[in-house]
Amino acid sequence: MPLRETVNNSHSRWMDADGPVADIAISSRIRVARNLAGVPFPHLLDQTKAEEVIHAVRIAVEDKEAFSRVGSLELSLLSELSPVERQILVDKHLISPDLLNNFERKAVVLRDDEVISIMINEEDHLRIQCLMPGLQLQEAWDLVNQVDDALERTLDFAFSEKLGYLTACPTNVGTGMRASVMLHLPALKLIKQLGGVLNAISKVGLTVRGLFGEGTEALGDFFQISNQITLGQSEEEIINNIVAVVSQIITQEQAARNTLYKDRREFVEDLVCRAYGTLKYAHILSYEESMRLFSELRLGIEMGLITGIHARLLNELTVKIRPAFLIKLAGNEMSAHQRDIFRAGLIRKEFEQL
Amino acid sequence: MPLRETVNNSHSRWMDADGPVADIAISSRIRVARNLAGVPFPHLLDQTKAEEVIHAVRIAVEDKEAFSRVGSLELSLLSELSPVERQILVDKHLISPDLLNNFERKAVVLRDDEVISIMINEEDHLRIQCLMPGLQLQEAWDLVNQVDDALERTLDFAFSEKLGYLTACPTNVGTGMRASVMLHLPALKLIKQLGGVLNAISKVGLTVRGLFGEGTEALGDFFQISNQITLGQSEEEIINNIVAVVSQIITQEQAARNTLYKDRREFVEDLVCRAYGTLKYAHILSYEESMRLFSELRLGIEMGLITGIHARLLNELTVKIRPAFLIKLAGNEMSAHQRDIFRAGLIRKEFEQL
Repeated sequence: MPLRETVNNSHSRWMDADGPVADIAISSRIRVARNLAGVPFPHLLDQTKAEEVIHAVRIAVEDKEAFSRVGSLELSLLSELSPVERQILVDKHLISPDLLNNFERKAVVLRDDEVISIMINEEDHLRIQCLMPGLQLQEAWDLVNQVDDALERTLDFAFSEKLGYLTACPTNVGTGMRASVMLHLPALKLIKQLGGVLNAISKVGLTVRGLFGEGTEALGDFFQISNQITLGQSEEEIINNIVAVVSQIITQEQAARNTLYKDRREFVEDLVCRAYGTLKYAHILSYEESMRLFSELRLGIEMGLITGIHARLLNELTVKIRPAFLIKLAGNEMSAHQRDIFRAGLIRKEFEQL
Repeated sequence: MPLRETVNNSHSRWMDADGPVADIAISSRIRVARNLAGVPFPHLLDQTKAEEVIHAVRIAVEDKEAFSRVGSLELSLLSELSPVERQILVDKHLISPDLLNNFERKAVVLRDDEVISIMINEEDHLRIQCLMPGLQLQEAWDLVNQVDDALERTLDFAFSEKLGYLTACPTNVGTGMRASVMLHLPALKLIKQLGGVLNAISKVGLTVRGLFGEGTEALGDFFQISNQITLGQSEEEIINNIVAVVSQIITQEQAARNTLYKDRREFVEDLVCRAYGTLKYAHILSYEESMRLFSELRLGIEMGLITGIHARLLNELTVKIRPAFLIKLAGNEMSAHQRDIFRAGLIRKEFEQL
């Protein structure tokens, strides 16, 4: 799929909400860092050398035989896109915000369904990402491995027997792997047990971040649980550790939902249905309020209190209502207030069709 | 109409929202105090004497010929009703809360459409009330006069050439008349000019009260404007004075609505449509929040931003969602929380049908 179609479309495979434990685990992501042997790390590259890296990766992904199992990938230069369109790739969680700096020397590789994306010349020469709906860390890891193997048919990655994969930043050395799961934890928040749960996570070597990674708030009650350590543990150990912790949190969230259903059913129904009414009728909606309402409505869907709306729609809307996609849809720049009006109109239209 | 039908039905003629300037003036009311000559005031009467007053009024209103123009009136004892049903008469603005004290010696006379009501043995022997939709003080006064004349065919009212009609409380001596208009002033509140307007009213000898008279808050942005003085002015002067002041407030509210429409259209649309969405979907609604939402929605109806809902429904709901009517509908006592849930269910049902 050409990159333009990717940015014209707010949908990604990870939004389908059809994976395992999809009522709490939104998506699972594996990202590995790879660097070309004998080539300086990206921050040391000039434009020409950076383009050589891009060229090398292009040759590698065009090896149809190597990618026969993985599926067809397409490399695109970020300079093909407008700033707003580049931001949409970030909002869809396909690339990191860092890839937008000095975008002239950067590129991205995508599979049609956007499950696989490879950032080129971000902090490392390659960052291979696999993003899947639900709790599928192992599946994502298997797929990353296939991509890794296919690329290695052509590329020679910097590797040390002692340290493992070499990376630009020492914190990624070793497996070079980051594994993360995005969880939706509204019930734990409502029964005021969220703080304790999140504190416990950091004590077992994992990190909690918001919807858009480090430093972003817990918008929409989304929490990204990921590993801090890449060295000294095998990939399987890292994944097993995260899955074990995440499964425990999922059990706690499920228990919190059961408590709410049993003891505070009217309270939850009121919360959920008010959110639905506001989304359906409001004429001014900030991004923050929209995310809060989506979270409340999603809880209603996940608890079976609301039917006729699929979480897929809400996942897609979390991208559609970001400033970048709104500007793309409107076809012009807008003030924050104009965006709030446009956003509310967009959401009303979606909900009128339900 | 038997009294039981009155309390089983949340509708009253004054709720029809079809009178003059009905988009701002909800209702107009004239109340006069009359006492039987030669009979001590109610607070000095024992049960037997009180029943004699009731009997005298019953004879008077049964004079079909005298009431041929006014229409048929029916006298009922308050003891026929349960406490909840008596409260419904207060909530419908047909009697004062004071009539509920020592109700065994009290009675009420009603016309079918509830435009005319006569309280017997409240502070005075008779308090004749006429309550009409919209700004119709003069029309209400004309009707009260007809009732007064019809009653005088049988009854002899205490009257002094010097003081006018004699009343139990000196503040009612003279005309014995209270005239009031209920106004809906949400726009003046929204543009923060309400305080100034209300202050000005008290400087011209008028009083501002809430929906349920003295001491009640400005629930639903309803304000009752009434005269303070009953002595030294003719009835016509009192009415003309109130109509003049009320007309000015109506002009100010109208100007405030125009300002909102012109300068803050999205803000008002958002407010109004959110209110609609919340009323349509909430599962827990307090009386206070419901009244606030009704006020916002009513503003939308009055400004032409919302169609398909008539203010009549909202007027009727302001009675229906009071604790008394809710208990009557449910058929059993409820805690405040249970009422909030029942109230929300009732409102949802009304809005689903729209």
